[in-house]
Amino acid sequence: MPGNSFGELFKITTCGESHGGAIAVIVDGCPPGLSLSASDIQQELDRRKPGQSHISTPRKEEDLIHIFSGVFEGKTTGTPLLLLAYNQDARPEDYEKLKDVFRPSHADFTYLMKYGLRDFRGSGRASARETLARVAAGAVAKKYLKEHLQIEILSYVEQVGPIRANIDHHTVCAEDIEQNILRCPDFKKADEMIALIESIKQTGDSIGGIIRGVIRHVPPGLGEPVFDKLSADLGKAMLSINAAKGFDIGSGFEGVGLLGSEHNDPFIIQDKQIYIQTNQAGGTLGGISTGQDIYFRVAFKPVATISKKQHTVSTDHQSVLLEIAGRHDPCVLPRAVPIVDAMSALVIMDHHLRQKAQGFAS
Amino acid sequence: MPGNSFGELFKITTCGESHGGAIAVIVDGCPPGLSLSASDIQQELDRRKPGQSHISTPRKEEDLIHIFSGVFEGKTTGTPLLLLAYNQDARPEDYEKLKDVFRPSHADFTYLMKYGLRDFRGSGRASARETLARVAAGAVAKKYLKEHLQIEILSYVEQVGPIRANIDHHTVCAEDIEQNILRCPDFKKADEMIALIESIKQTGDSIGGIIRGVIRHVPPGLGEPVFDKLSADLGKAMLSINAAKGFDIGSGFEGVGLLGSEHNDPFIIQDKQIYIQTNQAGGTLGGISTGQDIYFRVAFKPVATISKKQHTVSTDHQSVLLEIAGRHDPCVLPRAVPIVDAMSALVIMDHHLRQKAQGFAS
Amino acid sequence: MPGNSFGELFKITTCGESHGGAIAVIVDGCPPGLSLSASDIQQELDRRKPGQSHISTPRKEEDLIHIFSGVFEGKTTGTPLLLLAYNQDARPEDYEKLKDVFRPSHADFTYLMKYGLRDFRGSGRASARETLARVAAGAVAKKYLKEHLQIEILSYVEQVGPIRANIDHHTVCAEDIEQNILRCPDFKKADEMIALIESIKQTGDSIGGIIRGVIRHVPPGLGEPVFDKLSADLGKAMLSINAAKGFDIGSGFEGVGLLGSEHNDPFIIQDKQIYIQTNQAGGTLGGISTGQDIYFRVAFKPVATISKKQHTVSTDHQSVLLEIAGRHDPCVLPRAVPIVDAMSALVIMDHHLRQKAQGFAS
Amino acid sequence: MPGNSFGELFKITTCGESHGGAIAVIVDGCPPGLSLSASDIQQELDRRKPGQSHISTPRKEEDLIHIFSGVFEGKTTGTPLLLLAYNQDARPEDYEKLKDVFRPSHADFTYLMKYGLRDFRGSGRASARETLARVAAGAVAKKYLKEHLQIEILSYVEQVGPIRANIDHHTVCAEDIEQNILRCPDFKKADEMIALIESIKQTGDSIGGIIRGVIRHVPPGLGEPVFDKLSADLGKAMLSINAAKGFDIGSGFEGVGLLGSEHNDPFIIQDKQIYIQTNQAGGTLGGISTGQDIYFRVAFKPVATISKKQHTVSTDHQSVLLEIAGRHDPCVLPRAVPIVDAMSALVIMDHHLRQKAQGFAS
Repeated sequence: MPGNSFGELFKITTCGESHGGAIAVIVDGCPPGLSLSASDIQQELDRRKPGQSHISTPRKEEDLIHIFSGVFEGKTTGTPLLLLAYNQDARPEDYEKLKDVFRPSHADFTYLMKYGLRDFRGSGRASARETLARVAAGAVAKKYLKEHLQIEILSYVEQVGPIRANIDHHTVCAEDIEQNILRCPDFKKADEMIALIESIKQTGDSIGGIIRGVIRHVPPGLGEPVFDKLSADLGKAMLSINAAKGFDIGSGFEGVGLLGSEHNDPFIIQDKQIYIQTNQAGGTLGGISTGQDIYFRVAFKPVATISKKQHTVSTDHQSVLLEIAGRHDPCVLPRAVPIVDAMSALVIMDHHLRQKAQGFAS
Repeated sequence: MPGNSFGELFKITTCGESHGGAIAVIVDGCPPGLSLSASDIQQELDRRKPGQSHISTPRKEEDLIHIFSGVFEGKTTGTPLLLLAYNQDARPEDYEKLKDVFRPSHADFTYLMKYGLRDFRGSGRASARETLARVAAGAVAKKYLKEHLQIEILSYVEQVGPIRANIDHHTVCAEDIEQNILRCPDFKKADEMIALIESIKQTGDSIGGIIRGVIRHVPPGLGEPVFDKLSADLGKAMLSINAAKGFDIGSGFEGVGLLGSEHNDPFIIQDKQIYIQTNQAGGTLGGISTGQDIYFRVAFKPVATISKKQHTVSTDHQSVLLEIAGRHDPCVLPRAVPIVDAMSALVIMDHHLRQKAQGFAS
Repeated sequence: MPGNSFGELFKITTCGESHGGAIAVIVDGCPPGLSLSASDIQQELDRRKPGQSHISTPRKEEDLIHIFSGVFEGKTTGTPLLLLAYNQDARPEDYEKLKDVFRPSHADFTYLMKYGLRDFRGSGRASARETLARVAAGAVAKKYLKEHLQIEILSYVEQVGPIRANIDHHTVCAEDIEQNILRCPDFKKADEMIALIESIKQTGDSIGGIIRGVIRHVPPGLGEPVFDKLSADLGKAMLSINAAKGFDIGSGFEGVGLLGSEHNDPFIIQDKQIYIQTNQAGGTLGGISTGQDIYFRVAFKPVATISKKQHTVSTDHQSVLLEIAGRHDPCVLPRAVPIVDAMSALVIMDHHLRQKAQGFAS
Repeated sequence: MPGNSFGELFKITTCGESHGGAIAVIVDGCPPGLSLSASDIQQELDRRKPGQSHISTPRKEEDLIHIFSGVFEGKTTGTPLLLLAYNQDARPEDYEKLKDVFRPSHADFTYLMKYGLRDFRGSGRASARETLARVAAGAVAKKYLKEHLQIEILSYVEQVGPIRANIDHHTVCAEDIEQNILRCPDFKKADEMIALIESIKQTGDSIGGIIRGVIRHVPPGLGEPVFDKLSADLGKAMLSINAAKGFDIGSGFEGVGLLGSEHNDPFIIQDKQIYIQTNQAGGTLGGISTGQDIYFRVAFKPVATISKKQHTVSTDHQSVLLEIAGRHDPCVLPRAVPIVDAMSALVIMDHHLRQKAQGFAS
């Protein structure tokens, strides 16, 4: 409830600061009997970890995950999992000079307003390093959903700055996404995007973009009516990621220009089964899954940490000309892809358990 | 938890179907000592009620609200409020013929998949009539926020179909919004939009659009880190509204094309005080309010109920040519404005109470 | 969360004051497909209602229940139920003179301390009239558990003042409990108890006692480890009832004098099945149901409302000699029996749904 | 929600098994600005740790606590604390032979029924070793309550088997409790109790008892009405402790024999202030604190692990004559005292934060 937990039945609680002792997560509610080892989780973490390419931050962290509880003889027991990675390349001294300065568009100011003090070492709790915990927990959910329900979760970079990729979300596959360091399966556009990021990196600046998420083979019936709609919970999940500023599902912002007769998805009979011919809805109706693909977009702002000089102020109300020397990503999107995957997995897993409890076929 | 509650400390639980006995809400967590009468709530409900103009559904409901508990001698007592409106113009017989048919892009199919049976009278629980309860509860929050914290909450229609209004969200005021039946304070564009809706209504079709929400004078420090960011909770709140398909805050989807150096909002000193010069952020940093205006957009699809003939299927797997005679809105946006207001008020009120419990100055 | 809700997945939220407009409850999470009518609920409410015998309060309330939502064509739909009873014999004027007085051992003082104002009409929200809502919600759970899982829930008066009944909780049946107005199936002792209550009523005084609860045919596996143990949740449920001061399960306070070798319940093989020979545990081990009978005790203090003269004080710090003329129960136990049943049903129902979500066989 | 969390606003989530990698807890909702070091927590853990006297288990664990997050420059930051102790003297091989056996009155059977598999090493998650996490989290709450609100929390052994101590709970102090290894401040009776435990230990048996908890200087107004009564939440907290079988508050089970006129606590005026003359209530009225001492009892069964031979069964339905060689406590009470303290602190801290959010003076 105080804000560091997510999910109702597959419930995660994360902790840890960028330059503290560790980043960790307790996963409570994982069903018993799932085969699970550290390497199952590590492979997702490796997609998120810093230093994985020349367009990501050079901070060196292996992000080695330890499972301290909840697994016995290779299987989950139904009791809570503790997943923990020690911080290794913490350099708190880098941040000493940022102690009394509010970096523009960072959470320095708001954390101080909220708590009256703040851990100034590399954004502290507000650092995107927190997402390590989400990816670790999400890896558990993703594995369960794949093995027990054949649900496939993937996402990819669709836009960087003004450059839009041309990708068919119906057919894109996980392997294609991993073909380049950007995680954009339109290879031609990806090259342009990478070139753009390289040039922006040279100038010490940063750039935003859009990630597309896709979830396949979700059975119909997931999602709770009214407030905890599947679409609303996916939206919250994505908007809780650092730097996320927008979310839409199905036709989204584009759909507002259509007529109802254009936008409605007709039901049809094919081979005596009921199908839905189109999917403007994006896989949910009334907030409940239809069985079709769920697809959505997440908008990311350009990351706030830039090395260009910026005007700002200090805690004692002085003007400051700020130049940040630290290590950062010119574009967070390639590393955000596994985070979007993780949040998708957490939402679907939670609603799967809720449906087991409250749906009629359960 | 089963999906009909919203909020942690200012917690509402809604109930009621479109053609059942009543729509109601229990508001738990309202602070004691707030002056409150039914008319305080009624004025917000009147902005949402059907039949208020020729571009809304002709269903006749006075939506008269009753306060059954939680108020004593004109003041809230700290105990739960029961706010209830009886359904009056229910015409379940209109829906008898829809009993076995899945209306395209409605929740008929997914409710049946989820629950194994459904109340087919006018969408049952999935009806937007449920939002009456949200507006009633939101009116309580809105009144508290205005009287105790001088927080102002408003929203307006910014786009209908392809027509975009030109409105400065910094200066728009509540009175201007109520100047026309569309709740669009760009009067010239509003006339165009109304004409468009009228023509679409003639053809039995529907159209979507975008609502802009604005929240002013929120003190810095509201919002919880990590998952329950103020921005994420606003997103979930808005995406839980019927027909909502997208949400963005601040620069949102537009901001992805900017560089970090363009997008960052500089801190400045003015009259020895700290200010933030621009507001690409939309009023939150790290998910916590900065004290600046919060502004966001909500995308609404064209409403699914149209009177044009549509191809669909029946529960026994037959093709059906459907023509819906019922009463409906060609464009939900003017009636959705008070719903967006209500959801804003509920989110801010909840985070205000959370901050009282957990912030340092509390 | 603000205290008027109970349960996680079968979640109830109650509202209403003793002399307000109505007592009501929203039941969220009731599975779809349960046959339910008002009379199913009414029969439980009739066991709780005032005026049912000469040893209960003469307040006249029919406690007629209305179902306003969540039921369609005689079956629950999976959407929230609103159960409501209007207050009829409210006599707020009786309480005008108690406006400024703290009745001893009532919640007048603490509500004022907490909220800064209070509804002084007949204890307001602190009135045991609130339990009407619990019994209504509990009746739904009890019906579901009986019909879908063959779980039997009952309770009875075991002690009034110093008089202890001699009842075998293994064999007692629901019919026997209803044989007398006290709901004590030891008929001889019941007569003594009734005589005691009658004599106490004459003097304007009150008396406490103990209720025994029994729950049969609970499948093994219900209850969550660590904090949400079935035993702990039953304890909280019972201790939340007005006037309850103690709870124990199985051997309880008596068991502390035993040796481990005496107290341990041996597992045995009988007809090739595993059984537990004795049941000191009271039906749970490690907080999880064993499949044996669950049995427990709830201690009730003598009700605080007495008509004897009492010394007390007023809100303006004056000594007052108080004589309360109102209507009250000399002993709450017979009317508390259906409340204990209801709370048992709510706890078991909630853990049944939790087990469906999180147990292995689910 | 899946059962390993406690509290709403001061929320703890625990994890870890008896012979896994570590026992840990995330404390979410700790207010910022509290001075906190590992030694503050260690001193409470040392009161709980095994091997502290000849009447406790000889398992060797230092229970050294590590703070991995949430503290910066010696103060809490408002972000979640991770408190972790590595398991050191784990001897899983001791338990290999218990793999297929259900120990009487242990949770072996019910965990298997619930989860379909179980960690059989020393009770796994059901081990009382989990309470380490509670004591660590409770130490944080206890320190906050003492420093910020002058609330004093203590508890002591009142009864072992049939031997009852004679202690005035109004005047007992923390120092006296620590004067002997039993934590019973009636020194004469304590000697008798210790002798009894020694003799029982010789025979390989165990014995139960009663702990009295006392909480002083709680301000009036803590506790939520109806379900989350302070008394009900204390009851749940205590009943969730391993081996706890009963709870009562104030007059409790003894009070049922009194008349209302004897049991009611009169309000009086003294030095122009309002006081309550007696305290049968145990410090709460209507579930809300009065400002008087809160006092209650917790009944503990004799611990189930004994080294005497016992008849039981195996998972493959065979009769087994069981002799457990492991290390165990003949009487858990002295080590349960700091656990009772911890649970008291957690409940009061949580309701303190809730009152800040929802009370009128907040």
